[in-house]
Formats: sequence, C-alpha cells, structure tokens
Amino acid sequence: MKIEIVNTGSELMLGRVLNTHQQFLCRRLADLGHVVTRQVAIADTGSEIQTAVREALSRADLVITTGGLGPTSDDITRELIAELLGKKLIENKEVLAHIENFFAKRGRPRPAKTSVENFVPEGAEIFPNATGTAPGLAMKAGDRRWEIGDGAETSPSAISHLPSAPPKWLVMLPGPPRELRPMFDNQIVPLLKREFADEIFICRTILTTGIGESRVQEYVEADLQPLVKRGLEIGYCARPGAVDVRLTASGAMAEKLVSEGEAVVQKILGENIFGFDDAEIENVVVKLLAQKKKTLALAESCTGGLIANRITDVPGASEIFLGGVVSYANSAKEKFLDVRAETLQTHGAVSEAVAREMALGAREKFGSDFAIAVTGIAGPSGGSAEKPVGTVFIALASASGVEVKKFLNVWERATFKQVTATQALEWLRRTLSA
Amino acid sequence: MKIEIVNTGSELMLGRVLNTHQQFLCRRLADLGHVVTRQVAIADTGSEIQTAVREALSRADLVITTGGLGPTSDDITRELIAELLGKKLIENKEVLAHIENFFAKRGRPRPAKTSVENFVPEGAEIFPNATGTAPGLAMKAGDRRWEIGDGAETSPSAISHLPSAPPKWLVMLPGPPRELRPMFDNQIVPLLKREFADEIFICRTILTTGIGESRVQEYVEADLQPLVKRGLEIGYCARPGAVDVRLTASGAMAEKLVSEGEAVVQKILGENIFGFDDAEIENVVVKLLAQKKKTLALAESCTGGLIANRITDVPGASEIFLGGVVSYANSAKEKFLDVRAETLQTHGAVSEAVAREMALGAREKFGSDFAIAVTGIAGPSGGSAEKPVGTVFIALASASGVEVKKFLNVWERATFKQVTATQALEWLRRTLSA
Repeated sequence: MKIEIVNTGSELMLGRVLNTHQQFLCRRLADLGHVVTRQVAIADTGSEIQTAVREALSRADLVITTGGLGPTSDDITRELIAELLGKKLIENKEVLAHIENFFAKRGRPRPAKTSVENFVPEGAEIFPNATGTAPGLAMKAGDRRWEIGDGAETSPSAISHLPSAPPKWLVMLPGPPRELRPMFDNQIVPLLKREFADEIFICRTILTTGIGESRVQEYVEADLQPLVKRGLEIGYCARPGAVDVRLTASGAMAEKLVSEGEAVVQKILGENIFGFDDAEIENVVVKLLAQKKKTLALAESCTGGLIANRITDVPGASEIFLGGVVSYANSAKEKFLDVRAETLQTHGAVSEAVAREMALGAREKFGSDFAIAVTGIAGPSGGSAEKPVGTVFIALASASGVEVKKFLNVWERATFKQVTATQALEWLRRTLSA
Repeated sequence: MKIEIVNTGSELMLGRVLNTHQQFLCRRLADLGHVVTRQVAIADTGSEIQTAVREALSRADLVITTGGLGPTSDDITRELIAELLGKKLIENKEVLAHIENFFAKRGRPRPAKTSVENFVPEGAEIFPNATGTAPGLAMKAGDRRWEIGDGAETSPSAISHLPSAPPKWLVMLPGPPRELRPMFDNQIVPLLKREFADEIFICRTILTTGIGESRVQEYVEADLQPLVKRGLEIGYCARPGAVDVRLTASGAMAEKLVSEGEAVVQKILGENIFGFDDAEIENVVVKLLAQKKKTLALAESCTGGLIANRITDVPGASEIFLGGVVSYANSAKEKFLDVRAETLQTHGAVSEAVAREMALGAREKFGSDFAIAVTGIAGPSGGSAEKPVGTVFIALASASGVEVKKFLNVWERATFKQVTATQALEWLRRTLSA
C-alpha cells in the first residue's frame, strides 16, 4: 500500500510555520502498519495544488492533503480538488447546522465567510469537525485514471482495462493541528480500517546516549547481520547528545525479528540505553522516582525553568515533583535557596560552590529526596575568558551528599538550555538506575 | 528562480522526528528573496532518492537535499546522487584531514566508518563541516538534460539547443540541524549570492490575538483590495489563540506595497496586534519591561515552569526577570510564597484566593514590580464537577494591587500549558502597553 501526503500552505513555503502534520500523520500511519512513501509541501496556488495531487494519485493508493479548507480567501484546496476530480461543490445542510452550532455554543454570531465551508464535493464522505468548523472530506478517486499519468488528457474509456483495481482514496484534512489530530484519530482511522487491509509493520527505536553515531553502528552491526539477512532493517539517527537505533520489519516475522534485534542491541549498548520509542529522559526519570517513591526539587538558574517544564510535561509528575526555584537574580538565590552572599561574592554566581549550595538549599527547603541545581552562562553575552559562554555547573544532592559536575555547552541559547537540561536529567536517571 | 528541497530520511517517513529543515531553509531563502516552490520528503531508499532528485532537477533551478551524508549504512544520498549525475566518488585529502582533526580535537580516535565521508563526487564544491564530519557538497547539474524528463534516457546531444541556459545547482547538506544550519548560513548563502541574481521579495507577518480567522479577514479585506490589485498578496494563518496576517510582494514596489498594507491592518486591528514576524509575546513583554525599567517575578503551579522558560528564552531576560517559584506541592506554596494554609484548606489549591496570594507572595518575596501567578488543573486527571480539567486562575500583581481572571482551557496537557502561558503573558503585555 502506497501513501502520500500533500501539505498545502504558503506559510510552509515561506518558513513561517513548522510542518507538524508530516510527523503526526507519518507516525500514526506507521503505528497502523502503513509507511508513508512520500510527502510533498506546496504553496496555496491553484496549479501547484492540482499538479501535486494529480501526481500523488498517479503513484499512491491513499493521498492525504492538509490545509486549505478554512474560510479565508487563501483556503482553496477544496475547490481545486473538486475541479481536478470533476466533482461539483454542493451545499450540505448538516455541515451548515454544525457550523451554526459551533458559533452558537460560543455565543458568537457566525461570520459570513464560513458559509463556504458547507459546500462539499458531491459524493464525498464528510467528517464533522469536532474542534472547528471546516469538515474533513474523503473521496474515492475511483476510476484509477491517475495511473496513466496526466488525468486531464485521458478519457475514462482509455482505462477500462482496469475494472477490478481497488479504488484509490483522497482524504482532505483541515490545517489547524487541534482540528486535524482528533479528526484523524477518531474519524479517518475507522475509514482506513474499513477500506484498506491490515498490514504488519513493527518499528522499535532504541534511544542511546554517550556514544557517537558511527561508534554505535560499529558496535552493533556485526551481531545484527544475521537478522538483517532475514529482513530486519536498521536505521541510525544522531541528535544532540543522543543516537537513535531504529529497528523495523514487515510481515508475519516482524515482531520476532525486531524483538531479537532489540535483545542484541540491549546486550551490547547496555547502560547507554536510556529508553525506547517516544521515551524522553524526563518520562523515564518521573517513572523511576515514582517506582522508588522518591521526590525531586529543582534550583534552576541558566535553564530558566526548562527542567521543571520538561518534568511537568509528564502526566503524573505531581506525585514526585515538589517544585523548583528559578533563581535568575542573585538575591533570589540567597532568599529562596539560602546561598550565602559570601559564596556568591567569592566565587561568582556561575561556580561549583554556588551550584553546590543551590542544590543543598533546594533539597533542604523543599524537603525532597533529590535536588538538582544548575547555574551557567546561556549567552549570547555574559561570558569571560575564565568562564566562557556555555560554562555550566550541575549539582545533584541526595541523602548521600552533593556532587557537582562542570560542562561546556557551546550552543545558541535555546539549544544550550535543552542540552543542559538533558545532561541534568540523564545524570539523575543514571543515579536512579544504578 | 525555482527552488526545491528534497529531505531524505526514513525517520521522517516513520514520523520519528520533526522536519525542522523545511522551515529553516524556506525561511532563510525567503529572507534572501527566493521562495521555495516545492519540498519533498522520502525514505533512505535508492530508487526513491534518485527519482525525487531527478524530478526536482527537471523543474527547479536550485535543488537542496538534506540528510544521508553521514557515516552509517543508511547514509546513501552522496552515492546515489553521484550515480544519478554520472560522477565518480573520489577521495579528498582535505576532507580527510578535517575529519581527523575533528576527532583529534576531542581526544577521540577516528571511527573507521567515517572514512566514507572523505569520498566526494568529482568536480563538486566542498563545504567543510564546522560542527561535524561530513562535508556539504554543491554541483552544477550543468547540461540541463533534466528539462527533458527522465535523464537516464536522454543523450546529451538531444539538448544541445539550450547552450546558453544558466546551469542548475544541486546542493547537498548534512542532516543534523546543528551541522546544516551554520553550513547554510556561512557557506551556502555566499554560493547562492555568487550564482543567482538577487530577487526582491518582502514578507511581513502581523500577529493578532483575540479575533477569529474569518473575522480578521472580514475586517481588513475591503481596505486592502486596492493594494491587492497592485500586487500585494495576503495570507491568513490560525494558531491557538492567535491569527497571523501575512503580507507579501515581489519586485521593485514590494517594500512600498507591504508597508502600505501594514498601515491599513494596523489601523483596523489596533490593539489586537501583539507583534510582527517572529515576535513571540514573551519577546514583546521582555522588551516592554526593559523599556519601562520594571521587573517581573513568577509563581507557577500548573504551567510548571513554562512561563519562566519562555521568558528566559529571550536574550537579555536577566535584566527584567528576577525569578520564579514552581510551586507544585502545596507545601511549596506556603513555604516559598507565603500562601496561608487556611486559604489552601478553605478554597483548594486551584482557586481565585490561592492565585491572589501566590501573586502577592511572589511580588513581595522577589521584590519585583510585577508578579504573575498561575494555578490550575492541567489534566489528564485531577478534575472535579466544580473544577473540571482545564480550569485555571491567573493573577497579576503590581503596584496598583492584584487582579485574578478565571479561564477554562480544555486542551491536552502540553497545549494546556502553552495556551495558559500565552494568556498570562498577553495580559501582562496589554497591561504594559496600556
């Protein structure tokens, strides 16, 4: 089964927004056993949209478009695709009622512009939008004229030799993620299960840290060879401070191949593995703390609340997380964390001594089992010869005392914060796993 | 000038990672006056990569590929493109020296796998990788054979009627963002300036909040009509709690058209505009506080440090941000913010009264001019009939007292935190702008 995604939106081509639809749809489809074969993004322009959709239909069994269904003048996907497929747009009373209800519930009059949204291509399946107004649409591109190439030049009679071919499907989804995501999960997945045979595809990602990408392959590849010969596929992906090893397989033996591969990698890379699939280090840390019934407090300077933010992104964090202090000003370090004025003056805010006192102060004042403290220079300014931008001290306090490590994280500000937060969480993870 | 981007990587097609290259490259190219016409993502598979690159070269003047240049076995883009263009891979001593130096500097032996990275297509321009090992590559796809369609079947003599056509360029960039980004900015931009004529393209995004997408268009479109007739293009993009109005134009009149359009929108939407282009509300808030020489402190419960994190993402935040308390546990609210045990017991942690005391406590203890406090139920659990998941109280304390607002933000956990943080920052922005 071949699947293509066509993302429409000039804001994508201008780099104004990040295309999160690709990852969401590819991920959900892979979980269903279907791997997307191609994704294309184009501007909200008539000829571009029609060309891209026509090309996609010529290759794929399922084409999913995103965007261009809304009420404004640059939302033209619905009209263009109806035209391409030779379908009329007809008014749909149920969609109209849904849109009127949407605004009535919110006590706002319905803007006149939304009236375009209740015109839908004839014969389309309609998916009411639970979190917005424009419905999703699905159509059979039934006569498979697309296989010939340029549909515009092919008469239906020319393809009558393909009567038994299963129909292709074109699914059109609205652009806002908060509308597209629930619609896909609740309304499109049932359509796919109804129209397409189940496929078996297993993907397992093993998340490692502390070894470079080429070393990771060097260590595992020979032992994985026998499985590769039987159909296992291996991929490597380097990220800041981490390397993913991805094992995939299709068909009846998929589960077995991937499990065996995982056992091989686990045996070789051992404690460098911090998790699997979507695990973020913070999820692992929250889980480990909950299992051990231990609590955590934070004292963050240069990470500015990011560690707390990552920890509190994990559902159930409140069980183990007592809180944190973002001690940006020196006075906050003294008042909230009992860092001594003398230590600040003698060693400076970015120092081993201050990190140590911050961690001890946080552990003491929150009354937690563990406390992490971070102080450093995020940049772009504030560095010196002795302490350049990127200098970080991380302290970890526990019942057995306090330790401090020094790092040099030379990245721009946002990556600096992420990398530093990951180092702190990874240290805690290893401590909890030991 | 037509530009296409080809992103290679099975991890993209499996939805394991977000394609941040598209936004980065589209944005940088638009800033240079060039709008990307198409972006395609495909798996690390021989036939797919060659087909996608050949198709892109048949349409575009410049094709940029990302990924597949690294040392592991799924990094095959370099080999495939060399084969497609009929170029041999030859060993390059300078690249080898660069890679050896990269590992020597880090005190690590060079992994044997990296030796593939010093083989480059003959005739390619080579861009040493300042933050990694695999070099970037640029090649002229000079004979424009691609215009005919399938290059494999076209002999060079068949296209001799196009002798004066300018060459097409194929640029290959490594996949890790920390390698791709500086390479593009420092090494590819000069190549583009050398090889392609400057184009004038102006894009201005006006960021609004508090009005829906269709209303925004309804308000501004009639007054923008005369400019549209002269070549101004308008786009709208709805985001959670915000609508972007995008004005673009090309050519000699671009600057004038966009400026006039901006004046029209500004006059009509007035205080609903919170910024322009990349401005995030936190950037605006930090700037306004710095201008007024006022300071800020935070007391966050349900946002878990996100507001502090967003504020500290802004370079220079330390001038105005004293710090914050992430008071997840009730005991932290009492100890760090002087919230009274009685108030917590009578009203519950998620209440107007507790939000008020948190804000007053933070302002008092940090000694700031302004303090924001947030308490609510992020979910997925913890709600009740009286206080359902999504209930939030935001308090804003200043010299003139303290005010509390109640919101109901029914979103999943991460969006809940983002929307709540935006509401808090937007309230402060309006207070500072008043």
